[in-house]
Amino acid sequence: MSTATPTTAPHGYSLPLSPSGQSSMITPPPWHFSGEVVMVDYRVDPEAAARFLPPGLTPGADPGAAAAVFARWQWCSLDGAELTDPRRSQFTEFLVLLGCEHDGVALARCPYAWVDSAVPMVRGWVQGMPKQLGEIHQTWPMGVGSAGPRPSAPGRYDGTLSVHGRRVAAAAVSVRERAAEPPFLHTVPLVHTRVFPRWIPEEPPTEQLVSSVVTDVEFGEVWTGDAELTFAADVGDDLASLAPVEVGAGHVFAYAETLHSGKALGGAA
Amino acid sequence: MSTATPTTAPHGYSLPLSPSGQSSMITPPPWHFSGEVVMVDYRVDPEAAARFLPPGLTPGADPGAAAAVFARWQWCSLDGAELTDPRRSQFTEFLVLLGCEHDGVALARCPYAWVDSAVPMVRGWVQGMPKQLGEIHQTWPMGVGSAGPRPSAPGRYDGTLSVHGRRVAAAAVSVRERAAEPPFLHTVPLVHTRVFPRWIPEEPPTEQLVSSVVTDVEFGEVWTGDAELTFAADVGDDLASLAPVEVGAGHVFAYAETLHSGKALGGAA
Amino acid sequence: MSTATPTTAPHGYSLPLSPSGQSSMITPPPWHFSGEVVMVDYRVDPEAAARFLPPGLTPGADPGAAAAVFARWQWCSLDGAELTDPRRSQFTEFLVLLGCEHDGVALARCPYAWVDSAVPMVRGWVQGMPKQLGEIHQTWPMGVGSAGPRPSAPGRYDGTLSVHGRRVAAAAVSVRERAAEPPFLHTVPLVHTRVFPRWIPEEPPTEQLVSSVVTDVEFGEVWTGDAELTFAADVGDDLASLAPVEVGAGHVFAYAETLHSGKALGGAA
Amino acid sequence: MSTATPTTAPHGYSLPLSPSGQSSMITPPPWHFSGEVVMVDYRVDPEAAARFLPPGLTPGADPGAAAAVFARWQWCSLDGAELTDPRRSQFTEFLVLLGCEHDGVALARCPYAWVDSAVPMVRGWVQGMPKQLGEIHQTWPMGVGSAGPRPSAPGRYDGTLSVHGRRVAAAAVSVRERAAEPPFLHTVPLVHTRVFPRWIPEEPPTEQLVSSVVTDVEFGEVWTGDAELTFAADVGDDLASLAPVEVGAGHVFAYAETLHSGKALGGAA
Repeated sequence: MSTATPTTAPHGYSLPLSPSGQSSMITPPPWHFSGEVVMVDYRVDPEAAARFLPPGLTPGADPGAAAAVFARWQWCSLDGAELTDPRRSQFTEFLVLLGCEHDGVALARCPYAWVDSAVPMVRGWVQGMPKQLGEIHQTWPMGVGSAGPRPSAPGRYDGTLSVHGRRVAAAAVSVRERAAEPPFLHTVPLVHTRVFPRWIPEEPPTEQLVSSVVTDVEFGEVWTGDAELTFAADVGDDLASLAPVEVGAGHVFAYAETLHSGKALGGAA
Repeated sequence: MSTATPTTAPHGYSLPLSPSGQSSMITPPPWHFSGEVVMVDYRVDPEAAARFLPPGLTPGADPGAAAAVFARWQWCSLDGAELTDPRRSQFTEFLVLLGCEHDGVALARCPYAWVDSAVPMVRGWVQGMPKQLGEIHQTWPMGVGSAGPRPSAPGRYDGTLSVHGRRVAAAAVSVRERAAEPPFLHTVPLVHTRVFPRWIPEEPPTEQLVSSVVTDVEFGEVWTGDAELTFAADVGDDLASLAPVEVGAGHVFAYAETLHSGKALGGAA
Repeated sequence: MSTATPTTAPHGYSLPLSPSGQSSMITPPPWHFSGEVVMVDYRVDPEAAARFLPPGLTPGADPGAAAAVFARWQWCSLDGAELTDPRRSQFTEFLVLLGCEHDGVALARCPYAWVDSAVPMVRGWVQGMPKQLGEIHQTWPMGVGSAGPRPSAPGRYDGTLSVHGRRVAAAAVSVRERAAEPPFLHTVPLVHTRVFPRWIPEEPPTEQLVSSVVTDVEFGEVWTGDAELTFAADVGDDLASLAPVEVGAGHVFAYAETLHSGKALGGAA
Repeated sequence: MSTATPTTAPHGYSLPLSPSGQSSMITPPPWHFSGEVVMVDYRVDPEAAARFLPPGLTPGADPGAAAAVFARWQWCSLDGAELTDPRRSQFTEFLVLLGCEHDGVALARCPYAWVDSAVPMVRGWVQGMPKQLGEIHQTWPMGVGSAGPRPSAPGRYDGTLSVHGRRVAAAAVSVRERAAEPPFLHTVPLVHTRVFPRWIPEEPPTEQLVSSVVTDVEFGEVWTGDAELTFAADVGDDLASLAPVEVGAGHVFAYAETLHSGKALGGAA
């Protein structure tokens, strides 16, 4: 009879909400990530870096330490369903990382990030990771032939980022040898500010300082060598203040993690 | 002198936060929109529609009333700056709308939406509008020649939506004459559920029922006629339950509005 | 019986060849085009322009006359079939034009062209038009609201071109008044060099000078005013030699033509 | 002095022609390719396959033998310059291959091909390879983590092709063991029909049967196992006639070659 009303409201981990919850653009965590990383250690003006740290974070032991990270990822939810559709389980990413500390614990702050796909972009915003849409490319190691470096061997890797049809950053890493350790800024937790912007005028926006909780971190062989890194001259706004004042070593490695949740940090805005 | 610490935390209307606030992906409202709309009135199974309404909304006077809306937009912030970069000020959109009511006031619920650009997508999430990324195309009226209909005249307009490399919806509208009124579902406010998904396990997600506050609504000539509308057979999940059971009239018109803020509605989840 | 061999070889106007001929990527001419054009008259170094003219063409009465043309097009074949799929019937384009002459007849040479879609790109190569793939955007006139100029009225139109993730060219046109005539370089036939590159070492490449045969040319109102035009500093190679040394008037107009075939010109390479 | 005319006509391997020849969209051969291939052996209706063979080619020893090939490539010209810009040196590809013979020599005919980038598309047309633009994705092997198979190990690889916003083909390959030999259809030369479509009405189009000349062929480990392969039901036109009537083994392997030129075959159209 028609008096029956739906007993379940539309729901889902994220928008879109729907009767079954299956329309959610974002699947609930945890999410597994397997990737290949091309990373360049570099230094920024320490005062410029400090201006990107919110209350609760301090510059840490090595002010001005920064990194540019190109990565290509394959990801899946707990049941691995996304892996059968590589169009949806792959994305590329570019990050800037700044060394920092919270209560004496070393962390990495990500002031800027770009990905080439909408699901990881929105998933970043759930975490407070400021992902925007860009075009990111990095050299693939190749098992045969002369069009690319061999995996786990010396060779050259390039990375590029374009945003809104403009070149924003480019890197070149010439790895020569295996390193004993992964690069420091890729070994510490990320710390983000979750922001839910103001929409109802009388309600303040949400801002919340959180660190990311990951497990099953795995590094492949880390190869290291010389690097170049440039930001475009006309990159505009505050990103330009994080351009390299000195470029350090470059690294290439496989990396995996499982991302579970956020942990609220005291001292948030 | 070096003892100076930043007096201003990184800030912005949205992520990314930065020292000047200028890195924010989303500019603060209000936003001006000017667009061209190809719209098809259709009917869905009223029980299916009801399952998409959250507590606080009821099906309204005409249960099962729905619309499919293709639009191409130009937008700008208060200062109009975006208009000088058409790459950034243009986007295309496809919406499904369902008629509903809140406290006896007629509204439109948008269970699904797609746009072709990241900024309007994220801006949708700020409002609770469940925008995802898709590829949307609609016929352009043309002032001369035979490759397209004339503006403000009888003619045929097609619209298509593809998502993740699959065709999801297609419409064809053959307008014959001017209508006295714009189509009803495009004249009532939108009502959304703002969702900020759970990330810190012990904190519940935010869900908030809001209607959109717009001013400066303007319609151009409304042309109307017969329409076709199809959803792909394999569209999957809950969207399929909103496929047409009957297709009504089609409409083509110019439309503009200024979008300011959200208004919280009682009875939210 | 199995001795039957196909009586018809795979065929088609272009690749891919197939039994029915229907797989051809390019439909046979004629093709109808309806478009909106944002055009900037400018001047290049006459010697630089002359270096782009093949034997048989001379600089003409006004050496150094050039134009940058942004256009958005809808096109269809003779039967109009493509119009029901706007995804396939729409494209955007950016051209550079140089004034020239053949046997005393004024023509326009197009040394560089970009479109955002593969079919018009390959169709360009059939004609000898050197179309590459790029991202082209131009302001849309809008019938209502404040996010864009009104059609057939004073207003500002911007155009941008990006190629391989880099900004290559940008224009701004502020139209003030109707012009009596369309801009000259858009009224003369295009002259191209058809090239079929060398692939079999002992066979020379094909090069053939041809002008385009069009009918049903139609101009809408031509609006005209001041213009800006810039090429990116790092655009590289020979395109940089065609950067503006002086920028003239800008024009906005609707344009249509039907393109039929090429006409071989004497004096080809 | 001003009577000097340019001593060099604009030139280049392909369009665009320019004074230095550096604007050519396509670099002259040879081109080096390094790739990863996901391939499915399958069978088509032998009569359907025969209808795709031009005069000069016969079905060969195993009529109906076919393959679907997903590949991701890195390529460079002789000097390797493209490798420093991975955006330009990478592309993805999907091919259909049909077994055939010419003068008793086994060859592979490629009736359909798609790539995701314009340079390899046009380069295909130089060779007679009927490449169109599509979106191709295939699983990446990953060195660590759970989001993907390990290189050189059992695992599952998926491939998908979308064209004009519609899913056209999908494959799944579950490799179990190393194979002694690469799959046959990937070991024989390709045979294409170079086509330069008619443009000047009184001149016939060029059609020329050519086989590809490659050197430095290199295979990595070939892994093999079960496979699935489906073509979309509404794929339209003649491609549908090449849908699988039986699906055989699947293969995953690295592959490299250097492509030099074409060799004209007798019996061409």
